[in-house]
Amino acid sequence: MTPAGAWTNDWREAPGAVERALMAYFNDHASRFAYGELFEPLYHDLAEFTCRRGKRLRPLLFLASYRALGGTRPWNDPGIISGAVALEFLHAFILIHDDVIDRSDRRRNGPSFHKLVEERLGKLSGREMVGRNTAIVMGDFLFALALDALARTDFPEPVRAAAQGRFYQCLADTGAGEAQDILLAARDISRVTEEEIAQMYRWKTTQYTFEAPLLLGGLLAGVSVEVLETLKPAIEPLGLAFQIENDLAEFARVDPTQPGRSTDLIEGKKTLLIHRAYERLTELDRSFLQMCLNSSSLTEGSVLKVRELVRKSGAVQELRAECEKLRAEAHICLQHTPLDDAQKAGLLHALDLCRSNTAAETV
Amino acid sequence: MTPAGAWTNDWREAPGAVERALMAYFNDHASRFAYGELFEPLYHDLAEFTCRRGKRLRPLLFLASYRALGGTRPWNDPGIISGAVALEFLHAFILIHDDVIDRSDRRRNGPSFHKLVEERLGKLSGREMVGRNTAIVMGDFLFALALDALARTDFPEPVRAAAQGRFYQCLADTGAGEAQDILLAARDISRVTEEEIAQMYRWKTTQYTFEAPLLLGGLLAGVSVEVLETLKPAIEPLGLAFQIENDLAEFARVDPTQPGRSTDLIEGKKTLLIHRAYERLTELDRSFLQMCLNSSSLTEGSVLKVRELVRKSGAVQELRAECEKLRAEAHICLQHTPLDDAQKAGLLHALDLCRSNTAAETV
Repeated sequence: MTPAGAWTNDWREAPGAVERALMAYFNDHASRFAYGELFEPLYHDLAEFTCRRGKRLRPLLFLASYRALGGTRPWNDPGIISGAVALEFLHAFILIHDDVIDRSDRRRNGPSFHKLVEERLGKLSGREMVGRNTAIVMGDFLFALALDALARTDFPEPVRAAAQGRFYQCLADTGAGEAQDILLAARDISRVTEEEIAQMYRWKTTQYTFEAPLLLGGLLAGVSVEVLETLKPAIEPLGLAFQIENDLAEFARVDPTQPGRSTDLIEGKKTLLIHRAYERLTELDRSFLQMCLNSSSLTEGSVLKVRELVRKSGAVQELRAECEKLRAEAHICLQHTPLDDAQKAGLLHALDLCRSNTAAETV
Repeated sequence: MTPAGAWTNDWREAPGAVERALMAYFNDHASRFAYGELFEPLYHDLAEFTCRRGKRLRPLLFLASYRALGGTRPWNDPGIISGAVALEFLHAFILIHDDVIDRSDRRRNGPSFHKLVEERLGKLSGREMVGRNTAIVMGDFLFALALDALARTDFPEPVRAAAQGRFYQCLADTGAGEAQDILLAARDISRVTEEEIAQMYRWKTTQYTFEAPLLLGGLLAGVSVEVLETLKPAIEPLGLAFQIENDLAEFARVDPTQPGRSTDLIEGKKTLLIHRAYERLTELDRSFLQMCLNSSSLTEGSVLKVRELVRKSGAVQELRAECEKLRAEAHICLQHTPLDDAQKAGLLHALDLCRSNTAAETV
C-alpha cells in the first residue's frame, strides 16, 4: 500500500526545484518590473527576502499533493512549479505585512522586510516610518506577483476557475483571520474564548497553509472538486495542530534577556497556549499574566515570570498531547474519503515527507 | 460621427447600476464572509467605506469603454457589472492602504478606514495602532474581493487570460508606483527630477485609473489585444493630466487653519506642482519650501507661506495649461489608432461623460 519507489526518489528533487523556481521568477521577470533606479534595490531586497531559507511548507505540500493524487509531470515543468511559486509568494507577502503589524525586526534569520528597507535609508530621519510604509506597498506588489505566478499554472481548463476561486476565498479567509488575530490581541484575555482562537487559526493559517496547497495540488492532478471537498475534515485538525505546534515553538524561543523580541507577548497575542495557561492559573497568577498581555513593553523579569507561569500551568504538555490526537483524527478522516488506497497512502506519505523536511526550520 | 442616441440615453443608467452593484456585492456575499461577531462590524465598515459617495471614475470608464467599443449588454448584466465592481474595490483597497501610509484621518467626507476601526474601539489604549493594523489586513481582504469580482466578469474565453494578466500587471505597477511615491517623499526635493515624478504618476495612477478600465472594457467588448495596445499613447497623457489636476485640486483645498490636514505637505510628497514651484522660486524661498517638506509637522504660518510661495511661482497656471495640451495630445493619438470612426467618437464621448460626471467630486 506504500507508493511506488519512484515517487519517493523523485521527491528528493522537489525542494531544490522550488528554490530554483523562486529565484528564477525574480530573474526572469526583472525586465518586466524594471521601474527605475529607486525601485531596483527594493526588488532586490524582495527577492532576497522571499528566497531566504525557509520551510517551504506550502509549495512542498502542493507538489506532494499533486504527485500523491496522480500527477506525473516533472517538478520543473513550468505549469506545475508556478503553483508552488505562487503559494510561497503568498506566504512571503503575508509575512511582510505581519512583521509590519507586529513590529517584528527579525524573520528567517535576517532582518524583516521593513527593516531591510530601513537599513538602506541610512541615517534619514523618519526612516522607520518609511520602512514600514514601503513594506506595506511592496507586500501588495508581491501579492500581484503571486497572482501572476498562479496564472502560469496549468490547471485543466474545466477546473481553472475553481482553482482561482479557491485561491481568492483563501486570501479572504486569511485577511479575516488576521483581523480576528489583531482584535483578539486588543481584547482582555478574560473576554476571549478558546473557540474564538480556534476559529482564528482556521481562517488565518489552515486555509492557506493546508487547504489551498492540498486542494490546488489535487485540482492540478485532475481530481474533481467534489472528491477534494471530502478532504476538508482531515485538513481542519492538521491545520490546528500545525498552528499549536508553531505557538509552542515560538514560546520555546522566548528569551527573557531580550524582552523586546517577545513580540507575541508584547502585542498581547491570544494563542491557545496562553489562553490554556491562563485558564489553569490561580487568580493571582492570572492577574499578572493579564497585566503583561495588556502592557506594551515588558521587562526581563516579567518575561521570565510569564515563562515560568506558562510552564508550571501544564498547558504545554496538554497541548502537545492534543496535537497528537489531532493528527490521529486527520488520519482517520483521510481513511473515510473516497480516494483510492494508493492516493490515501500517497497523501499520508506526502504529509510525513513535508513534516520531516520542515521540522528543523522555524518559519 | 457622434454615437447613436441610444448610447447616450443608456449611459444615464450606468452610475446607478454601479452603486447598486457595489452594495449588492456586500449583501449577496455576506454569508460567505460571516466570520463571527468580531468580524461583522469590520465587514459593515468596509461596505460603508467602499460604497460611500465617490467619483466611480474607474468603473464608469470601464463601462463606457465597453459600450463605446461595441459592447451591447445592459449595465446590470452580472458578467459586465462585476468588472466595474472589481475596479472600484481595487481603488478602495488602495485608498485604505494609502490612508494608513499617509496617516490621513479623512476620506470621501468621512473617517478614513483605520479611523472607522479606531472609533469602534472606544477608549482602548493602543487603539490607533490597532486601527492601522486592522486596516492593513482589511485592505488585503478587499483586494481578495476585487479578484473574486473580476473572476465573475464574462471576458470572452480566448482573452480571459489576457484580461487577468493585464489586471495583475496593473496591480504590480501600482505597488511599484506607490513605493516610488514613498521613496521620493523621503528624498530632498533638490535631488528629485520631474521625470521621476512623471514615472511615478504613470505607474501609480495611469495604470489602474485609465489603462486597466479602458483595456478591460475593450476586451469585454471583444476588441483584440493588438488593437487595444494602440490606445496606450492616448492613455498616457490622459493619466498624467488627471494626476496633475488631482494635485491642483488637493492644493486648492489646503487650509492653513488646519495644518494637520495638509498631509501631502507633511509627508513631503513630491508632486509635479510642488516640484515645478520649487524650480521657479528664488534660493531663499526654495530653502523655506525645502525645510517645510522635510519637517514632520507644520504650523499655520508655514502652511500659509507655502501656499503663497506656490501661488506666486506661477506653477499652477503653467500646469493647468499643460493639462489642456495633454488632453489635446490624447485626442490626436486616439485619431491615429486603427479604431473605426464610431468607436473613436464613442471613446471621446465616453471620456467626456466620465469627466463631467466626476468633475464635482473630490476622490
